[in-house]
Amino acid sequence: MTPRLIATYRLRADATTIDARARAIAVEQSVEMPPEAIDAARILAEVVGAVEQCIDRGGGLFDVRIGLAAETVGGDAGQLLNMLFGNTSLHPDVTLIGVALPAEMTAAFPGPRVGLAGLRARLGVPARALTASALKPQGLDAAALAALAGRFARGGIDLVKDDHGLADQATAPFAARVPVCAEAVRRAAAATGHPTRYAPSLSGPHGAMRAQILLAREAGVDTVLIAPMIAGFATVQALAGEFPDIAFLAHPALGGAARIAPEVLIGTLFPLIGADAAIFPAHGGRFGYSPATCRRIAAAARHPSHGRRPALPVPAGGMTLARVPELLDFYGPDTMLLIGGNLLAAGAGLTAATARFVRAVADHSPHPNA
Amino acid sequence: MTPRLIATYRLRADATTIDARARAIAVEQSVEMPPEAIDAARILAEVVGAVEQCIDRGGGLFDVRIGLAAETVGGDAGQLLNMLFGNTSLHPDVTLIGVALPAEMTAAFPGPRVGLAGLRARLGVPARALTASALKPQGLDAAALAALAGRFARGGIDLVKDDHGLADQATAPFAARVPVCAEAVRRAAAATGHPTRYAPSLSGPHGAMRAQILLAREAGVDTVLIAPMIAGFATVQALAGEFPDIAFLAHPALGGAARIAPEVLIGTLFPLIGADAAIFPAHGGRFGYSPATCRRIAAAARHPSHGRRPALPVPAGGMTLARVPELLDFYGPDTMLLIGGNLLAAGAGLTAATARFVRAVADHSPHPNA
Repeated sequence: MTPRLIATYRLRADATTIDARARAIAVEQSVEMPPEAIDAARILAEVVGAVEQCIDRGGGLFDVRIGLAAETVGGDAGQLLNMLFGNTSLHPDVTLIGVALPAEMTAAFPGPRVGLAGLRARLGVPARALTASALKPQGLDAAALAALAGRFARGGIDLVKDDHGLADQATAPFAARVPVCAEAVRRAAAATGHPTRYAPSLSGPHGAMRAQILLAREAGVDTVLIAPMIAGFATVQALAGEFPDIAFLAHPALGGAARIAPEVLIGTLFPLIGADAAIFPAHGGRFGYSPATCRRIAAAARHPSHGRRPALPVPAGGMTLARVPELLDFYGPDTMLLIGGNLLAAGAGLTAATARFVRAVADHSPHPNA
Repeated sequence: MTPRLIATYRLRADATTIDARARAIAVEQSVEMPPEAIDAARILAEVVGAVEQCIDRGGGLFDVRIGLAAETVGGDAGQLLNMLFGNTSLHPDVTLIGVALPAEMTAAFPGPRVGLAGLRARLGVPARALTASALKPQGLDAAALAALAGRFARGGIDLVKDDHGLADQATAPFAARVPVCAEAVRRAAAATGHPTRYAPSLSGPHGAMRAQILLAREAGVDTVLIAPMIAGFATVQALAGEFPDIAFLAHPALGGAARIAPEVLIGTLFPLIGADAAIFPAHGGRFGYSPATCRRIAAAARHPSHGRRPALPVPAGGMTLARVPELLDFYGPDTMLLIGGNLLAAGAGLTAATARFVRAVADHSPHPNA
């Protein structure tokens, strides 16, 4: 038996067409040609996608489980995404809602190298939820961003990350920004006694990102931010393999558009290719993700398959200090809360607001019903 | 005045909320924090996104034109996509429907290096439409794929490309497959006198793709296939800059899922980052793109802004020999028709079927009303 990964698609169909639609997807995501024109018995038996199950979800929706040969993916994360949803993404009524890899693919896709436990160990935070904020806005120069980073860190926050919009722009080039932000955070950490981390945002192709990590590591940085849907899955996979000592924080940019269920894309696939933590748009914030979706994203990140390390879920996107207790009751302690704009809005009171955020998380007692 | 690119978004709103929604998108795609918490006048004036226009399209749909500072993009194609749609993709009711770059960004984004005219020149086809097919299925070994490539080429086709599902799998690794396929096509081309090209499919991260191009070039190949949504925009941009002699054929894998209007993603953005030709799902095939969408994709590829070279539109996806006259009337001669499965279904008659395809294109007289 050839090992197969299982991809589950949800599509709109009716009882008379669902079998044909399911077979068409199985063909599209494998040999991509009429099976009757294939004469190699091995390819028909082992390479053509196999419809494992069709489940009628009611209301004209069906869930189709398709087995795809592991050999068509090999060990490349870009090819994994291509085989899971490359051409089928072009059908407007199909969503990828589930992915399960066989144990045979664990060596090629080992998942997070640092993971939830590694991040907790580095930050010296064994039990409580973690805290994070972001350096913004774009357009500030390196010195201004460093000053901001220092103020966050003096509030005792766990992680200060670049806004995902910070790349290598002329106003604050990576090489100018990262050493001064890292230094500002290190000084503040020495003052507070808490090992706050700074995570710069990577941009450009693989080689540029590799050079950025080397530069950041030189500056004492061990955590970085990367957007897998923009960087490309193969780029993330390569970097995670090359830098097992670096924690990779995945940003969901462009990910909401992908018609891949968020719990699959952000909760399963991002950690699978090496993300140690996964940022996602939390319910009740600026984006429209439901509580159920957010719960599934967090669960998927924390419960990987085949002995991979758990990743850290990071709800974000319009979170506020006032919501900390509710968010912690909802997400539990194996969570990093990322609050950006609401802290930045405190202006001169940013460090004090950050300290309130940190204290609210540290002092939180779980709701008895949580 | 700071140069701005214009991004146009279509969203669902009502007259009472559209102004606030538009401003929220302008903020989300730039500074991503409350503008009232920004005290730098330059950032407020030059970096915060500006709502240029809101157009009521009726039925609850609005088109919002937003000016984004060119400085927030710099010269990185990944960052371009991030600034155009990174976070706003996470809103389920917003589609990116237009992108216009200012003349100041032409140096950083020069577009195709070979382009439509270069491809015509290499193939010695000054006027008629071009022809292409694909090597499938996955699971064939290198020798079988090479035999298939030779049979297509003996039919006189212009281009034989790898199926986008061919990566670097064990059954036909890139290094084993490409030299033999290239050689088979070269021999057939010597026999027919027509300079048929073979385009292998790139996979993996940037460095792996670069090595693949070097290996392919060593084998006499000057055309390659790449899927920008999987490879990452920055990877495509980097390769197109490093290999100006190589023609890049963009594959739309994962692109249909992106809630970016296909004419923008495939017709405008893929060529902008260096694709010389853009494959797209043609109307009436296996995918649901409308004739109007397909016409807009082709028009966008052929009519770039600011003196960039035109790219070649390549309709594909379930095309048949029988439809060649209709497709040529619809798309006109500055087009490459890509027919895969329908030729492969001819089995032992593949070379003859390919020759019929080539003749149908060569003999086509435009419909007087086309």
